[in-house]
Amino acid sequence: MSKIPEDAIKCLDKGFVRLVDSMGGDNAIVQAARVSYGKGTSKVSQDRGLIRYLMRHRHTTPFEMVEFKFHCKMPIFVARQWVRHRTANINEYSLRYSEARDEFYLPNPDHIQFQSALNKQGRMGEVSDQLKHKVHKYFKEISDRSFEIYSELNNDGVARELARAILPVNLYTEWYWKNDLHNLLHFIGLRSDSHAQYEIRVFSDAMAESVKAVAPFAWEAYQDYAVSGLRFSRIEQSILEKQLPNRVVDDILEDIAYQITATLHVNKPRSESDIYPLYKKQGGLDSEEDFRLKWDSGEIQSGNVRELREFKEKLFSLKN
Amino acid sequence: MSKIPEDAIKCLDKGFVRLVDSMGGDNAIVQAARVSYGKGTSKVSQDRGLIRYLMRHRHTTPFEMVEFKFHCKMPIFVARQWVRHRTANINEYSLRYSEARDEFYLPNPDHIQFQSALNKQGRMGEVSDQLKHKVHKYFKEISDRSFEIYSELNNDGVARELARAILPVNLYTEWYWKNDLHNLLHFIGLRSDSHAQYEIRVFSDAMAESVKAVAPFAWEAYQDYAVSGLRFSRIEQSILEKQLPNRVVDDILEDIAYQITATLHVNKPRSESDIYPLYKKQGGLDSEEDFRLKWDSGEIQSGNVRELREFKEKLFSLKN
Amino acid sequence: MSKIPEDAIKCLDKGFVRLVDSMGGDNAIVQAARVSYGKGTSKVSQDRGLIRYLMRHRHTTPFEMVEFKFHCKMPIFVARQWVRHRTANINEYSLRYSEARDEFYLPNPDHIQFQSALNKQGRMGEVSDQLKHKVHKYFKEISDRSFEIYSELNNDGVARELARAILPVNLYTEWYWKNDLHNLLHFIGLRSDSHAQYEIRVFSDAMAESVKAVAPFAWEAYQDYAVSGLRFSRIEQSILEKQLPNRVVDDILEDIAYQITATLHVNKPRSESDIYPLYKKQGGLDSEEDFRLKWDSGEIQSGNVRELREFKEKLFSLKN
Amino acid sequence: MSKIPEDAIKCLDKGFVRLVDSMGGDNAIVQAARVSYGKGTSKVSQDRGLIRYLMRHRHTTPFEMVEFKFHCKMPIFVARQWVRHRTANINEYSLRYSEARDEFYLPNPDHIQFQSALNKQGRMGEVSDQLKHKVHKYFKEISDRSFEIYSELNNDGVARELARAILPVNLYTEWYWKNDLHNLLHFIGLRSDSHAQYEIRVFSDAMAESVKAVAPFAWEAYQDYAVSGLRFSRIEQSILEKQLPNRVVDDILEDIAYQITATLHVNKPRSESDIYPLYKKQGGLDSEEDFRLKWDSGEIQSGNVRELREFKEKLFSLKN
Repeated sequence: MSKIPEDAIKCLDKGFVRLVDSMGGDNAIVQAARVSYGKGTSKVSQDRGLIRYLMRHRHTTPFEMVEFKFHCKMPIFVARQWVRHRTANINEYSLRYSEARDEFYLPNPDHIQFQSALNKQGRMGEVSDQLKHKVHKYFKEISDRSFEIYSELNNDGVARELARAILPVNLYTEWYWKNDLHNLLHFIGLRSDSHAQYEIRVFSDAMAESVKAVAPFAWEAYQDYAVSGLRFSRIEQSILEKQLPNRVVDDILEDIAYQITATLHVNKPRSESDIYPLYKKQGGLDSEEDFRLKWDSGEIQSGNVRELREFKEKLFSLKN
Repeated sequence: MSKIPEDAIKCLDKGFVRLVDSMGGDNAIVQAARVSYGKGTSKVSQDRGLIRYLMRHRHTTPFEMVEFKFHCKMPIFVARQWVRHRTANINEYSLRYSEARDEFYLPNPDHIQFQSALNKQGRMGEVSDQLKHKVHKYFKEISDRSFEIYSELNNDGVARELARAILPVNLYTEWYWKNDLHNLLHFIGLRSDSHAQYEIRVFSDAMAESVKAVAPFAWEAYQDYAVSGLRFSRIEQSILEKQLPNRVVDDILEDIAYQITATLHVNKPRSESDIYPLYKKQGGLDSEEDFRLKWDSGEIQSGNVRELREFKEKLFSLKN
Repeated sequence: MSKIPEDAIKCLDKGFVRLVDSMGGDNAIVQAARVSYGKGTSKVSQDRGLIRYLMRHRHTTPFEMVEFKFHCKMPIFVARQWVRHRTANINEYSLRYSEARDEFYLPNPDHIQFQSALNKQGRMGEVSDQLKHKVHKYFKEISDRSFEIYSELNNDGVARELARAILPVNLYTEWYWKNDLHNLLHFIGLRSDSHAQYEIRVFSDAMAESVKAVAPFAWEAYQDYAVSGLRFSRIEQSILEKQLPNRVVDDILEDIAYQITATLHVNKPRSESDIYPLYKKQGGLDSEEDFRLKWDSGEIQSGNVRELREFKEKLFSLKN
Repeated sequence: MSKIPEDAIKCLDKGFVRLVDSMGGDNAIVQAARVSYGKGTSKVSQDRGLIRYLMRHRHTTPFEMVEFKFHCKMPIFVARQWVRHRTANINEYSLRYSEARDEFYLPNPDHIQFQSALNKQGRMGEVSDQLKHKVHKYFKEISDRSFEIYSELNNDGVARELARAILPVNLYTEWYWKNDLHNLLHFIGLRSDSHAQYEIRVFSDAMAESVKAVAPFAWEAYQDYAVSGLRFSRIEQSILEKQLPNRVVDDILEDIAYQITATLHVNKPRSESDIYPLYKKQGGLDSEEDFRLKWDSGEIQSGNVRELREFKEKLFSLKN
């Protein structure tokens, strides 16, 4: 196995992620989308806007037009979670063909924690130095002893494919892993999540760096619409509908009327006299006098008209 | 092509969807999940609760353990949208092997509408009877004439694979279509959505009937957590955070403290004296006197403890 | 983990394969093919013939219409090879959620062999009892010691997802595994092959039993056309063309002319006087006198007309 | 729709295939294979040899490491066959979003043929000029009339997604299509085959040009081992075994013993006295005198030792 390549991102104690090659970026997404939607995209004139639109509305196929290929080295138990993402292409180091190498994952003391009481599959809490020491000692013991035995059986001529069966899953393996951006983002969404196991999160975060560099608009949109944000279930929504006073929703709607007006004005400046009618058209309820006061306050933010309008619709749905 | 089978759901004027076979149902989801999560599922003792938990947390693989096979007949332009769902297995009637049949889609007057001005890919509005009549006449003209020509070329011995090239995409085709429940739900989520074309929605809705019958809990959970509900983007969330008064959030949180208390009490009844401490533990802020008043009012609803706690967390995130 | 179920096929020392459910069989293949090929299949009137035709001509989609679901228990190193078949749906026992169990693969002495000198990834030869004993002892040592440590760390409250990292890949895991017949046959073709590792071959062979029972015609056709038989590369073919005397090819072609004649006669008996002309039509070169002698000898075999004709074409291609 | 781009390969009357982007080539296959097989590949020192080895033994995953993206324009009935290759990523021009364009496939007279009598899905024979003229006239009639109607309905404001339903499947559509080399070769294997419909073969052949340019060794190996060559079924093989005289097989085996000897000598020249023993070791049966005569004749070809040895094994299997 090669040493850690210079352009790789080091992960855990002996692993790495290295972007070997990629095809396309934000521009390839736009290019593909424009074929699909033809003239339909003429109004969404800017690449960033189009990419955000596609992400917001889950038009996922254009994101499949970008491809990434990584060279990765990670413990077997991490590879076992990773391989479940089935759209990827993989070539893994084979212990049938080649000899195992003496490279095992030994956890850093900071990441040795207790079983979470809340989360069946998590860890939590601060462990005593004594216990940390014991964990480390045991990892070392099994790693060393299993490799010693493996080497002896190898020297005795025992078939590699059999001898390797006594090696623990903290042994490092490596592979080439190729996937498209849509599925890579899905991977990162799941594996960089706080519920993912720490040891795979490190690799997911490392690949995220490549995505950010190769397709920055797509990355930003994925964060804004898929990862961050808040999802309320039908049940939660019905509670909100019942308990959120209409008055509060109306206040927010008012603010949004101002924001849309401001944004439209920024995009295409209107004459002074056209502003108030524009605001009324957005559903604004303030009197012209009040409007002027607030408008001139300089406190009104602008945003993205499409998004603000979609937000309005969602808020309406919360009114009793 | 067979007549419309008796147990099929009729779709459009000449199409249908028929469930040919299925493998597993809600129980197969539970069975698979229990292998994955082993003892980890012991507390989620009921199938419905487990299925809802899986859906809520996007543990999608158990839903792949249920399989559906449909026999469907639909216009080619519908099949063209449908076929893009790539996980399905398909066997379609081939116009290279077999002769086309004189079966074309003629839209029902109710579904002849104008191009939507708002939505590049939608329709809207009420069309005059005159225009409806014209549309119908034209559909009939092209269908009849193209089939006439096709038949003549067939009789002349021209290769079927070539002669069929003049047939319009409103010609009916048919296929066997097999997919797993996870991907079928995704299909229905997209194709029964109000933004999907009417002509495919009809088929999607028909398949939804089979899902409801075969895996009712999974269907319900998909509606509650994936289809319905409300998603706020990062941008929208930040506006809510700024503009939603803490006071309002606190009011809702108070109500939820009551609901959780009530639910816990329903699940495992407490003695009178244990109820108020239980409520306080849920973050309730009312005095014991106020609590008693409300508790005895009979107005407090119960729900699902897990969901209510998750809702609490989301609400906390909205506080400034 | 459940004990080995009664209806399971035991594999290795502690593993098993159990058919949990299946959807369709040979009839489902035929049903799907008849939709695709419509009237085109009318001549291939029998199911077996149609299935063999589909397999011979690599019309693979009808085989995707049959689905199998297995419950399997196998060592991790076997699961690692298995999981690379990406079309399958999998739910695996998770060592993040649940505790590992003290079940490790200890190879039977018969299957402890030397590394193959010929095949990078194989084993061969007879190993001394002494070495067999050593291998067994070492497998036992690592299995016992790693589980002892794992249990201790578990008792100390260390997170399961971390403690499991010291367990070796001969630990048993289990899963539900669902796949369609086309991809299952491909799996068996690769994993029941003599080049596959013994330990996965056992599981592949066990699943083959289910295929044989559920879709016997498909199984037979897969053996005849995909697994068995002989493939000559372009290079090999060109050597054959150069070095195989035309005379030999002609002799075989002669025999085939007899076989086709006999088969046609069996399928639809002719009058005595029509037999010789029929034979001539198949390219037979013998005089009528010689023909009569051979025809009456009772030594002529019949077969499948389509296959014999395809064979003729292949043989023609070998003539200089 | 863009005009036919300058760097595109024109296909049919108005279509094209254009390689937009690619990732990797022969070197990427080798790179990935070397990770999988580690030191195991050290002896197969040359890229070409390794690629041929991988192809011969159906080690398909390294071929998935190369990616191609094409921009294509083709009639809808061609797209309908094409789309069935499910591993590809696709973005197609949408007639819901955008207006159809007046571009229809009119077959060149040379490709207007009769329905094949032998092949349910083929065409054959020479059609009269009169019939060719009629076909062309009818294609033109339906194309023109349907587009006229489509345009009128569009002008009347009828929803695009509905009006397009009267357009015939010889209408041109276009898409971006991305796939990996393994699956692209499979596509070409099926669609450039003589049994594929002429109209898709043209596009498949055009993409083949890109494969040849980007990954020439992989292309060559695919031809030699997957496309060309001869496959005998189990039944055919049993006939060959019965009817091929051992003597003939022995003659070919003799020739191969010479070829292997010559090849080994070319790869690593031996002293004069070592040649005959080397030949005997390959199973050569000639006397030393006869050997010298033939050896000095200059007629012995060399080849690839591995392939010649595999051929030997196949021939042995044919002996009674």
